[in-house]
Order: sequence, then C-alpha cells, then structure tokens
Amino acid sequence: MKKIAVVLLSGGLDSAVALYSALREGYICRCLTFDYGQRHKKEMSAAKRLAAKTGTELKIVKLDLPWKGSSLVDKTMALPMDRSISEISSAISSTYVPARNTIFLAIAASFAETIGADSIFIGAHFEDSSGYPDCRKVYLDAVNEVVKLGTKRGLDGKLRLKFPLIDKTKKDIIGLGESLGVPFEFTWSCYKGDKRPCMKCDSCILRAKGFREAGLPDPLLDKKYA
Amino acid sequence: MKKIAVVLLSGGLDSAVALYSALREGYICRCLTFDYGQRHKKEMSAAKRLAAKTGTELKIVKLDLPWKGSSLVDKTMALPMDRSISEISSAISSTYVPARNTIFLAIAASFAETIGADSIFIGAHFEDSSGYPDCRKVYLDAVNEVVKLGTKRGLDGKLRLKFPLIDKTKKDIIGLGESLGVPFEFTWSCYKGDKRPCMKCDSCILRAKGFREAGLPDPLLDKKYA
Repeated sequence: MKKIAVVLLSGGLDSAVALYSALREGYICRCLTFDYGQRHKKEMSAAKRLAAKTGTELKIVKLDLPWKGSSLVDKTMALPMDRSISEISSAISSTYVPARNTIFLAIAASFAETIGADSIFIGAHFEDSSGYPDCRKVYLDAVNEVVKLGTKRGLDGKLRLKFPLIDKTKKDIIGLGESLGVPFEFTWSCYKGDKRPCMKCDSCILRAKGFREAGLPDPLLDKKYA
Repeated sequence: MKKIAVVLLSGGLDSAVALYSALREGYICRCLTFDYGQRHKKEMSAAKRLAAKTGTELKIVKLDLPWKGSSLVDKTMALPMDRSISEISSAISSTYVPARNTIFLAIAASFAETIGADSIFIGAHFEDSSGYPDCRKVYLDAVNEVVKLGTKRGLDGKLRLKFPLIDKTKKDIIGLGESLGVPFEFTWSCYKGDKRPCMKCDSCILRAKGFREAGLPDPLLDKKYA
C-alpha cells in the first residue's frame, strides 16, 4: 500500500520543491494551504496550479484569527523593502507571523491523523529565511516530538514530520527542484501581490539570489508569464 | 507591571479551575475559546459566563476544519455512554479530537506572542481524561519546547506554558476549585448539549466521581440551574 503524505503547500518555491520531493519518494500527496488573511491571493493561486499540475488533492483551510501582528497579514504595516542579504538575515523580520508554522503543523497533524497519513512534509529551511525562529531544525525536531507524543498515530510510530530542505540553501533547493522537474513558473514568492514580482521585498531578493547562484534563469520572470 | 496569561477556557470544569489558578497567581487573564464544530454550544456559553463573572476578556476563535474524525464533532458518530471508569481509562476514546490541544496551544502561542503575554495556561490533566494522548505531561513538556524554540518571546525566555492541574485527580481539581471560589454551576462538562447533564457520557461520569470523592455536591445538578 502506498504511503500517504500531508504536504504544506503555500505555493512558494520551497513548498513546491517539498511536494515534488514527497512525490519522488513515492507518497500519495494530499496538500494543505492556508487562507489566513495574507495580503494577496497569488500564493494560494500558485498552490492550486501546483496541485492541479501534479494531480494531487489540495484542501484550503480558512483561518480567521482575531489578531494580526505581522506585516504579512496587516496591510497597515510596511513590508521591508530593498534590504541587503545581511540586513535580511540579521534579525527576525516584521514579516514573521507569530507561531505560524506551529499552527500549520498542528492542523496538518490533525488532518494526517484523520486520514491515516504517514508523514507531514514542510519545505522550511533556515538559511535565507529572514531569521524566522520556526524555520530551524531544532524547532522542527521539537514539533516532531509533539506529533510523536500528542497524536494516536504518532504514539503508534506511524506519523512523522519530514523537512527535507531544512539544511539546504536557496541555491541547493532550486537545483533540487530543477532536477525534480518543478515548474518554477507556477510558484509565487513575492510578498506583494502585483502582476509581476516586485524584486524588492526580502522574498524576491532571496529568490533572485538563489537562481543567480544556481546559474539558472527564473522562468517566472519570463515575459510570457506576465 | 502585571504579568499576562492567555488561558484556554473551554467552559469545562478543568479550564475554569485553570483560569482561577492564573488569577490567584496575579495574572491579567485573556481567555480563548474555540468554536470548532462541537456538537453543542453549551460549553461555549459556560466560557462566556465564566469570563463575565471574572471580568476577563474572552476571544472566540472560529475553526472550520474540513475534516472531522471524532464523535465530539461528528454527530453521525455515537458518543460512548454508560461506561465504567476502567472502560473509560482503558483506551483512547472516540471523543478524542485529532491533535486538538496542539492546535489550540499553537493558536494560543500566536495570540500570546502578539499581545506580549508571559504564560499560556491549560487545564489539562491525565488521570480521568479518557486516555487522550494530548493530556499528558510528557506531551505538554514537548509543546513547551516548541513554544520556547518557535516564537520570538519563547526564544527571549519570556513565554512559557503552564499546566497546573496536570498531575491532579478530578477530586483534587474540584477541591482546588472550591478553595479558589470557582462557580462550578457556571461550568459545563457533559458531551451532550441537553438542558441538564446526561449523567451517562464519560465526561458526566468522571465529573460525578470527582465531586463524590471530594465530598462535595455538584451545584450544576441543583434544580435551580435547570
């Protein structure tokens, strides 16, 4: 019987590579994406395109938390722009959403338990990740303990977290995605939701650096996707 | 400056005692309750009454997960009834909601981070808890690690989980609640949402055993609250 993976698919580049990694490992993938009041819906549209492209099921979970606390969900806060790589890496950014990955992983664990899944995939990685505390291996190991101890399937040794990109750089992730056939033009990284990537927000800057270092063009920047 | 606690307040007896414990410790309490498709709204009404009684703020978080997997949220599943204490304790019950406490605690951590809280209180306890894996100390210790590692305030040593009832029996919790002045007639434990407690579901049976062993009457059973 084929193993089942719940994949957190935001529609960004990293989660797309995580999905293709899970498919390569032979999992039947069931994807989750969250509608939690992001500034725009472009990432969610990207998740839908990626799910359709891979023939995987995508569930959209609506989360309407009665507080904000991040420039990623609060349009009255300014997004950081035009920062250098060292500025981006030096402190936790205003785009950090309090406990976001913990909420997403908890809900993924609930879904995984309900459908009898074997693994939960998350495309988190620390390097180039704006210093988010919930993108570190030590944090994900701790969440794995919670899954092991706090769910029936975890207790039975049947459910674990997988984070295959955690130690990789953006360059490596793009190289891996290229080898797995990830359609990068279907992914969306920009924090703004304009027609084209702004190329000024932290996420655009890190993505551009990754493609440059990988020696590959970013197909999303091709005019035909404008 | 007074410390702030986020309190998970379901409206059940245990969470009411947790709230009064936090107040006794001098915290300003901000309560969260979850509207996650329970079979009835009586527990939520109890949470509102308890918040009003204590003059604490209550936020209701609506969670509409597109799956069920528990007799507590799926009305097509039968609730276990008329079970003995040993039957209740012998295995994980159908009333177990997959990863429920993990989801609640993750969302509480997000709220706590946003408002600058110092502690998160949860009234979980293992004895008499229908064998839920997410009501054990080892599990809550693991969640505490996640809070420490996955939030800004946790990393700064400013946010921790507190579970003051974890090692207590229902009898002890009722005794503690009595000494703290908890209005037990404002709490609701029954899994069914009828006018009066059914006295047959696991939760009613455990509550009745607790009051019996504590040598106290359950004021909720007084006819004036019918």
